[in-house]
Amino acid sequence: MLESAPLRQDIVDAQNRIKKHINRTPVLRSSTLDSIYGTSLFFKCENFQKAGAFKSRGAVNLVFLLTGQQAKNGVCTHSSGNHAQALARAAKLRGIPSYIVMPSDAPQVKVDAVMEYGGEIVFCEPNLQARETTLEIIQEQSGAFEVHPYDNYDIIAAQATAVKELIEDMDEQADIVLCPVGGGGLLSGTALGIKYFSPGTRLIACEPKGADDAFKSFSKGEIVPSLEPNTIADGLLTSLGQRNFPIIMDNVESVVTVGEESIIKSMRIIYERMKIVVEPSSAVPFAAILEEKVDVANKKVGIIISGGNVDLGKLPF
Amino acid sequence: MLESAPLRQDIVDAQNRIKKHINRTPVLRSSTLDSIYGTSLFFKCENFQKAGAFKSRGAVNLVFLLTGQQAKNGVCTHSSGNHAQALARAAKLRGIPSYIVMPSDAPQVKVDAVMEYGGEIVFCEPNLQARETTLEIIQEQSGAFEVHPYDNYDIIAAQATAVKELIEDMDEQADIVLCPVGGGGLLSGTALGIKYFSPGTRLIACEPKGADDAFKSFSKGEIVPSLEPNTIADGLLTSLGQRNFPIIMDNVESVVTVGEESIIKSMRIIYERMKIVVEPSSAVPFAAILEEKVDVANKKVGIIISGGNVDLGKLPF
Repeated sequence: MLESAPLRQDIVDAQNRIKKHINRTPVLRSSTLDSIYGTSLFFKCENFQKAGAFKSRGAVNLVFLLTGQQAKNGVCTHSSGNHAQALARAAKLRGIPSYIVMPSDAPQVKVDAVMEYGGEIVFCEPNLQARETTLEIIQEQSGAFEVHPYDNYDIIAAQATAVKELIEDMDEQADIVLCPVGGGGLLSGTALGIKYFSPGTRLIACEPKGADDAFKSFSKGEIVPSLEPNTIADGLLTSLGQRNFPIIMDNVESVVTVGEESIIKSMRIIYERMKIVVEPSSAVPFAAILEEKVDVANKKVGIIISGGNVDLGKLPF
Repeated sequence: MLESAPLRQDIVDAQNRIKKHINRTPVLRSSTLDSIYGTSLFFKCENFQKAGAFKSRGAVNLVFLLTGQQAKNGVCTHSSGNHAQALARAAKLRGIPSYIVMPSDAPQVKVDAVMEYGGEIVFCEPNLQARETTLEIIQEQSGAFEVHPYDNYDIIAAQATAVKELIEDMDEQADIVLCPVGGGGLLSGTALGIKYFSPGTRLIACEPKGADDAFKSFSKGEIVPSLEPNTIADGLLTSLGQRNFPIIMDNVESVVTVGEESIIKSMRIIYERMKIVVEPSSAVPFAAILEEKVDVANKKVGIIISGGNVDLGKLPF
């Protein structure tokens, strides 16, 4: 397993390792949106990824990298989101157990999804400390290998494969790539993907105003934790990881923030125009275009759509 | 223009004529749905078609077939649905005006879409007689060429290209194709597409119980008009066309009907699992699987997703 930031070849290796178990997701376009915004948009649709989000890339990569010894007691993590499903699925593919610590208030649809993939769920109080303590106990009891959702170089190498595919599938080089940021797994991977495979492309991170720890961290040059985040973009609540932050500092041009209203409006535009189902976090980059936080006029703009797991009974429009 | 039912070459010609102006829509799959239903499903996603529905195929074909003389005063139709948008768009591509008679209660989102494509809208009372009378007046005043949404052989030839693409993009021959039926434009086209390009594939038409005129017509062997249809599948309300019906009688194995609850449930399953936005009419074929009206076990099943134009503010779940 990688002990330092992934190199070019590490990303190629990750791509080869995971490709059998993930989807090469489509890059979709909309001539109507292009004409409204005077730009060329390329949507990399990780909502069509296995288990509904890019997280399957990292989870598969790590699970299949484990030695027989490391894998023999399974894997564990705490997550109420897409990492939980992705890890449970990856473990099932490898034929090992997975233990997922979830907060007791996790949405039933997410609990069901983890169970469907054969994950063993352990519920805990809905706060970070309870999650970490419970995971520690589970880890000790089971001897399972702990898989962090983003603060891990092999996870980062695998998340980089999404933008690598996007680059390969675009007819010309992207001028800009817009990527949402939560813990920074996708963003740091995207940063390295661009660095190695499309140098010259500008990378702009997009974050909800209500969870602007990456914006603050980027400005300050040190990790500012995410305290009491409040946004509909439930995949972007966490603090940046130690391994992710330096990669982001070195390779991201800027972090822009967007309001809740634009996130919801963008989500609806994506449903209406692209005819795809995305979760709120996926709408954050488009919201940056809507708010004119990024000048996309006459540019080729890649947009990473991170996932499509959303409670359809609670759509905000 | 065709004066009798399209032959093999007519469909090939239509495909060549329209391909520059329409999307070759993707065929999407879901391993989860396949495993739940013990089958192999291939979704032909015409929700990703230009103007959001398969109707763009027929409209483009007809508009580009018109002679300069026929086209010089534009085209006209009455429609509150996808045909309106598709025709307005096709006319704009050819650079001729379009006059669309729409009922005064048409959803604003559909009115906006037609206007966006440059269509001139003429509102009328929301009943069939007012629509027909108003269209007649508009047609006389403007000299525009009237384009029927489905009872037209060139429209049928073009709608056949959707299943032709599906057949080309499947790895093996489909055992069954499931297709929704309203006026019969898509169904009669699909029937001919299968007859010429995948003989041996069984074609089953799927219809809401609340608008079961095709079921009754098929049983009786003559067109039974659609009287007071009542279904959420608003694309499937109309009666079968004179040119469509004989093609359907000759080439469709059976017509099955499904209830409203299954249509809504299917719609949600498609959103949740496929991560795509579809209109209620598009969910009708999957509802036939849900209701076990068709035995799909261990079969390769093509499903025509007809369109994705839906009022997101009024989703039924």
